[in-house]
Amino acid sequence: MDKCFDFGNRRSIRRFSDKKVNEAILSEMLLSASHAPTTGNMQLCSAVVTSNPDALRRMAECHFNQPASVSCPAIVTFCIDVHRFERWCEVSDARPGFRNLQGLFMGVLDTALLAQQFVTLAETAGLGSCYLGTTLYNASQISLLLNLPNGVVPLIAVAVGYPDESPAASGRLPLSAVVHTETYHDFTDDEVRELYREKEGRADSAQFVKENEKETLAQVFTDVRYPGSQLVEFSELLGSYLDKQYFNK
Amino acid sequence: MDKCFDFGNRRSIRRFSDKKVNEAILSEMLLSASHAPTTGNMQLCSAVVTSNPDALRRMAECHFNQPASVSCPAIVTFCIDVHRFERWCEVSDARPGFRNLQGLFMGVLDTALLAQQFVTLAETAGLGSCYLGTTLYNASQISLLLNLPNGVVPLIAVAVGYPDESPAASGRLPLSAVVHTETYHDFTDDEVRELYREKEGRADSAQFVKENEKETLAQVFTDVRYPGSQLVEFSELLGSYLDKQYFNK
Repeated sequence: MDKCFDFGNRRSIRRFSDKKVNEAILSEMLLSASHAPTTGNMQLCSAVVTSNPDALRRMAECHFNQPASVSCPAIVTFCIDVHRFERWCEVSDARPGFRNLQGLFMGVLDTALLAQQFVTLAETAGLGSCYLGTTLYNASQISLLLNLPNGVVPLIAVAVGYPDESPAASGRLPLSAVVHTETYHDFTDDEVRELYREKEGRADSAQFVKENEKETLAQVFTDVRYPGSQLVEFSELLGSYLDKQYFNK
Repeated sequence: MDKCFDFGNRRSIRRFSDKKVNEAILSEMLLSASHAPTTGNMQLCSAVVTSNPDALRRMAECHFNQPASVSCPAIVTFCIDVHRFERWCEVSDARPGFRNLQGLFMGVLDTALLAQQFVTLAETAGLGSCYLGTTLYNASQISLLLNLPNGVVPLIAVAVGYPDESPAASGRLPLSAVVHTETYHDFTDDEVRELYREKEGRADSAQFVKENEKETLAQVFTDVRYPGSQLVEFSELLGSYLDKQYFNK
């Protein structure tokens, strides 16, 4: 396989140098990324680039000031966008019907694929990046910051810049955890333990367990990083926001 | 920019040769793709490979026998998967809380990024591919075919094989339609018309309008390809399916 497409050593970057990202380079990457696959070639997505220092500070707050968001020279927020398509319909005597779950998911997929093509291109160009999974936690605030019209929903953001660190790749589960042939092969208890054995055995995993005073690595995820009560709370906020911003309920 | 990462000529392939895709090559690509970015390194996603001819025929039916699904030697269905993570929690004395909107979207993003890395790798290896956007229309039937346990949801499928056609790239909107700087720049009527002028002027667009006896290209999308009434119907099916398969309502 062509070496430049081996993703095995792909790492997120969370500490960036002071060097700005040239606007023309960002545009070139976004132009190439915009050829990502898209539902019916409708491109139900948009990208908003934040690089003004004041705006970046406010945006980082929306991402709980997580290290990548504070350290980066630019954040690209990738948004589901049916608004532009609807505007086109408006001037074309056409009546669109995308304000439903299927329409939302078309936009979600278009947006995620655009974001991933951008990340792949950025990393090839020597830039580092980190997805900010907090985008949907504070979608409403991000929406206000970026002045998004109804029908445009921030889905995922990418912090981008020149790396000031060289972290080890974080490792992944064995292929048998992720890939199934013909039908889904469910796992016995022993098989599940085996799938996660290497992950649990990593030095950083042991440190997470110790630091957080937990008994198992899984508990670090369920009790500290992604507690259900918090996800439920953020889900309610997201549900209300989508009702207003997308479903027009 | 490195030539091998120029996505500008990327095309979907809908007609495949009889040549099978070697299982080892598929596995190698899925292994590399599994290093795609993922929420908290949880990998809330799975891929199910369908290549048995009978199973492929049944799967193609779930995709309305669209040309790519009928012609390809393999379909990879990419699924949101919190089940495997929950099984790990079960054997680790941990209580996960992902059965809510935020948890679902974590899985959605993990799954979409995995799929796109697979597509990029497949295309580099000389394979052709086509996303089957019909996956969420018939998620319930696909779920049955693949024997997906509760917590596993088919999100998007990719038809993959060796190309038996060499279509022209389908073209995209100008960058100014997709990328905004600092805040979303809304469009005037004239600006919207200008953004879609090139698309409307393409020979294939003119043909779509004529074939479907419509007045504008936008009407082909809203009245023929994605009529609102149909999307509403499929949204209701998807909502019921997600309530049962994911939200346990």
